[in-house]
Amino acid sequence: MLELTLQTSGRATAIDPSTRDLLKNSFYGTYDRKELELSVEETLYLLDMRNAACAQAGRQVSFNQLASRFWKTNKFVARYFTYKDWRDRGLVAIIPGQHYSEPNQTTIKKYPSSKLRLPSIKLHGAFYKTDFITMLEEEDAGKELYEKFWFGQYGSYKASEKGKANKLDIFEAQFLIDEGKLELTNMSNDSLAKLAGSRRKEFPSLYDVYRDWREKGYVVKTGFKFGTHFRLYFPGAKPMKAGNGDWTHSKHVIHVFPKSSRLLISEWARAIRVAHSVRKTFILAVPGKTSNAKQEIDYVLYHRHGGEADNPNNSSPKYAMLSLSEDEYIGGQELAGALDRAKRMRLELLLAIADRETAVTYYHVKQIKLQGSENDYFEIDWLQP
Amino acid sequence: MLELTLQTSGRATAIDPSTRDLLKNSFYGTYDRKELELSVEETLYLLDMRNAACAQAGRQVSFNQLASRFWKTNKFVARYFTYKDWRDRGLVAIIPGQHYSEPNQTTIKKYPSSKLRLPSIKLHGAFYKTDFITMLEEEDAGKELYEKFWFGQYGSYKASEKGKANKLDIFEAQFLIDEGKLELTNMSNDSLAKLAGSRRKEFPSLYDVYRDWREKGYVVKTGFKFGTHFRLYFPGAKPMKAGNGDWTHSKHVIHVFPKSSRLLISEWARAIRVAHSVRKTFILAVPGKTSNAKQEIDYVLYHRHGGEADNPNNSSPKYAMLSLSEDEYIGGQELAGALDRAKRMRLELLLAIADRETAVTYYHVKQIKLQGSENDYFEIDWLQP
Repeated sequence: MLELTLQTSGRATAIDPSTRDLLKNSFYGTYDRKELELSVEETLYLLDMRNAACAQAGRQVSFNQLASRFWKTNKFVARYFTYKDWRDRGLVAIIPGQHYSEPNQTTIKKYPSSKLRLPSIKLHGAFYKTDFITMLEEEDAGKELYEKFWFGQYGSYKASEKGKANKLDIFEAQFLIDEGKLELTNMSNDSLAKLAGSRRKEFPSLYDVYRDWREKGYVVKTGFKFGTHFRLYFPGAKPMKAGNGDWTHSKHVIHVFPKSSRLLISEWARAIRVAHSVRKTFILAVPGKTSNAKQEIDYVLYHRHGGEADNPNNSSPKYAMLSLSEDEYIGGQELAGALDRAKRMRLELLLAIADRETAVTYYHVKQIKLQGSENDYFEIDWLQP
Repeated sequence: MLELTLQTSGRATAIDPSTRDLLKNSFYGTYDRKELELSVEETLYLLDMRNAACAQAGRQVSFNQLASRFWKTNKFVARYFTYKDWRDRGLVAIIPGQHYSEPNQTTIKKYPSSKLRLPSIKLHGAFYKTDFITMLEEEDAGKELYEKFWFGQYGSYKASEKGKANKLDIFEAQFLIDEGKLELTNMSNDSLAKLAGSRRKEFPSLYDVYRDWREKGYVVKTGFKFGTHFRLYFPGAKPMKAGNGDWTHSKHVIHVFPKSSRLLISEWARAIRVAHSVRKTFILAVPGKTSNAKQEIDYVLYHRHGGEADNPNNSSPKYAMLSLSEDEYIGGQELAGALDRAKRMRLELLLAIADRETAVTYYHVKQIKLQGSENDYFEIDWLQP
């Protein structure tokens, strides 16, 4: 039987040598002189799952009695259930602030850059404001723009030989305006961005990301069919593959999460799920300057090698966990802060989301680097630990 | 060669008998005395895809010239590309207002009702406001509530034998409060709804839907894993199937779309896509009183029987089409209006969404009836016509 003593701080201690050694060997708690001190989540876990007894001034304290003292604490339930889930998997989670041996490196995936070189053209088009579509007037130049650079949709979708006009989406139109290649015939060029921004306040952020990849040679088209803002093709992609005439398939989708926006966790996770179900790599774009927003992470996680659980005695931790719950909001700022914090800890970020049934879903966040870009981009994968 | 004459109204007429007969036989246009009059979309389609010539006062009018006259018209591009897509599939679409023979019946799917009968219990729990979770104090009664009625999560997710407390989600807690079965220990019962509503303004709508199905015997749990608000089990479902001990699997998910809310089409479609990818039936809930909001539908659609396209001479139309585009917003009010309009036309509603590349995705909206409920519910299916 594990015997714990609850302090007025809410932290519990183990003084009894056998309890202390057992907990120490399972990597619970921190040492302060000869006492082993447990965090609230650790104590609750031992009460809930390890049949520990916890007493304060001689009286037994139950799980609910201890937990209830913390109901005002920020995201206490999310923290507890994500901690519990990791431990229930036989894996080690420790409280941040304890010493650990840093992993050798965190992997940053590099995406190559090239430079988009557009021909010397001047196109004209009418902008349809309800649908955000620009219809180009020039048929031949419109066809070339589609076939060589995959701007717009010439003719019909997946049947460019049927019909004549090239239809540009709002990001393509804005990009070609900025490159000096397009002139609107029914309104001023400048009014496009204003109009788009007034209808959809994230337009500047979406366009920032579109432009960033497009000018580095990537092809960026709508991600509507995959439930994301964009889908992405590597530099040089054309609508049809040369040679065999097959359609080119995208392998990446981009979802833009402006630093200033806040989104329900459940809505945020939905976008990742669609990408996962269609087997695309999900790229989260967090455009704009990195701020100094500080975000603490919740746990330092050891994973496993082969079938063996890693622990502080034999290895380095792998992830920094940010604990969240389904009905909570997350801000771009907060996410960027957590990513930054994990990076400085030399750990990879793991988002752990406890749903209304206390089931936990994990998303692994890997930093990627688009050469020449100043935006933050991350690959996000659903992970089963 | 099809010869059309453009009127100042923007509508085109075919006077030449051979053109007129050809168009009439393909079900374009409406008859006004001996003239065949075409809508703008029909004229554009014939110019774009059927190589028609269109003249005004002796001068040829191009596709872009005609289309540009309508760039201020509401969702003109969405209307054109959805019309085009239906026609390109060899199917007939006509402009509303023309006579058609009404289909025999539109199918309304009935969902049965029973009555939830809770035992005479009084439970106590602390509400954790960041995570919207209520921890019940009573262990045995909490276990029974979980096992018999599937309220909350007793023990651990998918391992109810591990751990003791029952954790209720916010909807379950509110429902049990309203049924007089639960008393909060750390705040007043009344403050729960206020607190939930202040953090998430759709809470009353979500709860309305939760309550509606729950009190009719259904089990309603989080849909987080499926990207929706809820998942649904038919009356009598338990966490474990009797006999074989398997987990019960849900076949339905519910997404709530309050009449007062507005959502980007792309975000709305994302929720349906996740449900489709996990093979669940997607139920859209539009809670609240039906308003008198009028919404016109865009086209009346004939589908096919066997391999043959239906047409006004040999059959009844099947769908009323509402044309939308990816970057547009749709309101719950507007959708309810379109559903109501389709119902009065005795047609089923088809949402046709043109994305930024002019590809069209179809969602079939079927009305369902939950016996004893006053809310509107619809099954939504992705459809390939």
